[in-house]
Amino acid sequence: MPELRLYDYAASANCLKARLLLAQLERPYERVPVDIFAGDTLTDEYAAINPARSTPVLQIGDSTYLSESNAILVYLAGGTPLLPDDPLRRAEVVRWLILEQTEVMPSLGGLRFRLVTGRLAAEDRDAMRRRKLGEATLTALDLHLRTRDFLVDAYSIADIAVYAYTHVAPEAGYELAAYPAVERWLARVEAQPRFANDLVPYPENARLGASRSIYDA
Amino acid sequence: MPELRLYDYAASANCLKARLLLAQLERPYERVPVDIFAGDTLTDEYAAINPARSTPVLQIGDSTYLSESNAILVYLAGGTPLLPDDPLRRAEVVRWLILEQTEVMPSLGGLRFRLVTGRLAAEDRDAMRRRKLGEATLTALDLHLRTRDFLVDAYSIADIAVYAYTHVAPEAGYELAAYPAVERWLARVEAQPRFANDLVPYPENARLGASRSIYDA
Repeated sequence: MPELRLYDYAASANCLKARLLLAQLERPYERVPVDIFAGDTLTDEYAAINPARSTPVLQIGDSTYLSESNAILVYLAGGTPLLPDDPLRRAEVVRWLILEQTEVMPSLGGLRFRLVTGRLAAEDRDAMRRRKLGEATLTALDLHLRTRDFLVDAYSIADIAVYAYTHVAPEAGYELAAYPAVERWLARVEAQPRFANDLVPYPENARLGASRSIYDA
Repeated sequence: MPELRLYDYAASANCLKARLLLAQLERPYERVPVDIFAGDTLTDEYAAINPARSTPVLQIGDSTYLSESNAILVYLAGGTPLLPDDPLRRAEVVRWLILEQTEVMPSLGGLRFRLVTGRLAAEDRDAMRRRKLGEATLTALDLHLRTRDFLVDAYSIADIAVYAYTHVAPEAGYELAAYPAVERWLARVEAQPRFANDLVPYPENARLGASRSIYDA
């Protein structure tokens, strides 16, 4: 197996996904800290490994770089039960990986980031738009999980992906008690073997005013 | 192989993806027309097969329903060269399937829909926001395709997914001549065996005022 390096921001839930899966698969890797808000992703060197300047990036061997957190999950989970071989189940996993990026992250994750770092106040128009999308997302998730233990049959990378920003939704002001099937599912994810959540709070330099990052472009 | 039915809107490029792949794989299927703007997706019956009320939906056998256009591509392409088995290439395909939904569709597709159906004028703030995102998306796509024939090595469902809204970008006011590597790639996609583009223009009932759909919620 090739050696792995993870270009990683400790406070990013997208990066948490990769760290959590690597821990659960017991894959050794070198962690390369990227300080997004100190401008580490704005350098020419970073653009050379990821033109989109996002984190995480997985370096595989000497010169292969893979970006997009959920694509990294697909790569690492290949050949393990966390990415089913069955064509329908695999397609359903990918369906959740897409919905996570189109609905869960912009609403729950995007609102939390903007509130916590002072980019938005709760009553701002964009905050209210994201809150409404987040409520619809949590409602749909709760409905889906009422009759299932995991998003697609057994525990998979779909659960890891959606867990990442859902478990911190209370920091965006969502009351997860209103979504009891989601709460029970979060607990089931956290009860998986080798579960490890090492997400840290946004540091002071992530606050608007202090930061220098693509988030302020 | 189970029988297939496609719940399908003729003017949707998301639906075109599924039709194009089914044609290229020579898979027979029954087409079930869904008139989005006449309210067909707002019924309880439709919510039962797809709570998100989007199109397309693939019915597999008697009672299995798969939504999200790119997840449908993953299901249908399983076991064919259009979805590589190699873990890295497969992950790169999924990376493009995600970027298509987070960047290509909201910018190129979303702007085209809103301009063509009278929901936005070119100078509206949301139109300008989408135009800027679309320009960044086309620039990134052009850069990527300057050194490659297809998005991930050989022709794959990543190309089908990104083709869908990119080939109609001129209807959103984009000049594709400014992105020559994208233009050459579109021609390569269209030269594939059994390529079939049967996308139709938005009908009159898609115009704001005439429509009754989730797009006006």
